[in-house]
Amino acid sequence: MKRTILTITFGVLAWLGGFGCFSCFGQEALGYKGEVVSPQINADGTVTFRYQAPKAVTVKVFGDFIEQRVADLKEGEHNVWEYTTPTPVASGMYTYSFIVNGDRVIDKENVAVNRDIAQLTSILLVPGGIGDLFMVQRVPHGTVSKTWYHSKTAGFDRRLTVYTPAGYETSGKRYPVLYVLHGVGGDEDAWVTQGRATQIMDNLIASGKAKEMIVVFTNGNISQEAAPLENSTGYTRPTTALPQTMDGTFEAAFPEIISFVEKTYRCKTGKANRAICGLSMGGCHTLWITVNNPGTFAYSGLFSAKVTPRQGVESPIYENFEEKLATYFKSAPKLFWVGIGNEDFLYKENVELRKTLDEAGYPYTYRESEGGHIWRNWRLYLTEFVPLLF
Amino acid sequence: MKRTILTITFGVLAWLGGFGCFSCFGQEALGYKGEVVSPQINADGTVTFRYQAPKAVTVKVFGDFIEQRVADLKEGEHNVWEYTTPTPVASGMYTYSFIVNGDRVIDKENVAVNRDIAQLTSILLVPGGIGDLFMVQRVPHGTVSKTWYHSKTAGFDRRLTVYTPAGYETSGKRYPVLYVLHGVGGDEDAWVTQGRATQIMDNLIASGKAKEMIVVFTNGNISQEAAPLENSTGYTRPTTALPQTMDGTFEAAFPEIISFVEKTYRCKTGKANRAICGLSMGGCHTLWITVNNPGTFAYSGLFSAKVTPRQGVESPIYENFEEKLATYFKSAPKLFWVGIGNEDFLYKENVELRKTLDEAGYPYTYRESEGGHIWRNWRLYLTEFVPLLF
Repeated sequence: MKRTILTITFGVLAWLGGFGCFSCFGQEALGYKGEVVSPQINADGTVTFRYQAPKAVTVKVFGDFIEQRVADLKEGEHNVWEYTTPTPVASGMYTYSFIVNGDRVIDKENVAVNRDIAQLTSILLVPGGIGDLFMVQRVPHGTVSKTWYHSKTAGFDRRLTVYTPAGYETSGKRYPVLYVLHGVGGDEDAWVTQGRATQIMDNLIASGKAKEMIVVFTNGNISQEAAPLENSTGYTRPTTALPQTMDGTFEAAFPEIISFVEKTYRCKTGKANRAICGLSMGGCHTLWITVNNPGTFAYSGLFSAKVTPRQGVESPIYENFEEKLATYFKSAPKLFWVGIGNEDFLYKENVELRKTLDEAGYPYTYRESEGGHIWRNWRLYLTEFVPLLF
Repeated sequence: MKRTILTITFGVLAWLGGFGCFSCFGQEALGYKGEVVSPQINADGTVTFRYQAPKAVTVKVFGDFIEQRVADLKEGEHNVWEYTTPTPVASGMYTYSFIVNGDRVIDKENVAVNRDIAQLTSILLVPGGIGDLFMVQRVPHGTVSKTWYHSKTAGFDRRLTVYTPAGYETSGKRYPVLYVLHGVGGDEDAWVTQGRATQIMDNLIASGKAKEMIVVFTNGNISQEAAPLENSTGYTRPTTALPQTMDGTFEAAFPEIISFVEKTYRCKTGKANRAICGLSMGGCHTLWITVNNPGTFAYSGLFSAKVTPRQGVESPIYENFEEKLATYFKSAPKLFWVGIGNEDFLYKENVELRKTLDEAGYPYTYRESEGGHIWRNWRLYLTEFVPLLF
């Protein structure tokens, strides 16, 4: 009893110290001393969402796991609004928002947030299926590092996220390397936060489904040092309209990254020990880095790729596609993997790409999944691509 | 022109792909196509906050840089509410929230968020003074890693954040180690996100004010594997009421961490190469780890420390304080540093501690700053403590 009281007192005092008179706007002002739990995964697999708002007229929840995308919460006691999904939510990772009087906000009861370009949403992780791969399990964990390399092309240091498998620090061993590229509006954080890629790696390696490997998550916006708040220019609002994006510069500069990685980490080298994959814009980067550097990567994965360069862009990187493709396939790569959702807005570009590959008789693996241009597909593709490597 | 249009189209499509019909709740529904900028640091040093809400009756901004803590925004065109501070905001790092119709929310226009226990707030970084130490500068950057050690005490793997100085990977050199401990409700993320400790380290080392060192940020909640969403139990809501907190267990288990760090990284060993500091609960941990392991740390820093153990807690760790203190000071530590704010709710405990030290004639450094139990003080203390090490 004493312990509980002391803990609460200490916590409240610490909080007051940091936030002063703020408590007058908190739960106390509402005459409600309980804790609002949201989201809550129920025993039957349904999920309950709650939002406490003192003066709300409407509260809705928005998420792609809700059939109509948006559902109304009903107000209960203490201004706590509530909605329970009518059916169980399938295992996986989802993001959601509340819409309070028409204003989109995150779930106040859930500190797990996700950033997609300049938009924050709340995270729901449902275990019991593919979601288990996205969760931390009691298996050996790799190390996830934020490190910086000097880009001669950019003229400044740029940040990378690097996954080294469990035991790397003391094993003395060398490992093959997978490079993983993000989409437009993303950065070196995207695959780790939205993609849960390091949990996927831990879990696939621990279950013996994937080889031990180093994974490098690059920042494909060459004009940028790093994610927001980590730039010397101060806070930068994420945007899809950065200079030097998808104009060939990042692709041309990619060997700088390989060179840094192979000098800094204990890597196995040679094409048999290098793989690359990326989503959307990162799929475009993957394609053009791959064909411009034949004999560099034995494994390439295009996830919902933007195949063709942006209209009006001129760069030697994007010239002579058919010639480059021929040279690349002559180098006998082990895997050229193409994945796309059947509702993706880039579906047609990928049909065209496959037509080109088919007509020339180049070998590739094709994976078509349900749905559109969404992280659910990109996480899925990573879980399927990684076991095929090395 | 073409480029802009294409970029926007691509971005919107990607966004629609991810979020479906969500745009109907966004700016488009409000008939407003502009971009709301918030926060905005103005040329005269004042800061403007903006919040767009379609059906708001009141919008306030709450932050500890506002004299009365809270200020009213005024509604302008397109339901964009606005407030500008009457005077310049001093350089530093601040957090703030909006209160929309009595409901506390983060700034939708600012993806830089801060978590304090279970509360998310928005971040404002003002350069031009101490704030410059908290920002990424064009200096060599250390690597920041999330890595896991096995705790025999806990019976599972636990996560640490480790800063290795720029050049560590390839220098072949050994470095001294500073251990940095968080407060109640925090974890291995707190000092890096709220404390901006790795930017502080980069900037102090680059300017020659601090030695190159490895910095280890521990998780002081021994019942926890890691920060929220990184536990095998699934998402865990941050709380100040965790089991086995401030009961001596973490302090007793601390040698496990030192042992892991010195086996895993190229460390200089011996007390002259080890330092420890912590804030609030982490100050308590620092004190008791220091005196229970005399001859282990030559440098200890108590930042707004909870000095006395929690009432009713019994542990051999907390017994025989005066004896342990005597043994510790006989080991001739180089620095025992105590910092506290003049309005801190733990001020009296620190007066008592100094009285004990003074009466016994033990040497220590005392730093009293303005204000209470707040991150502004803890960041300040770190910038002053680190230059005194090694």
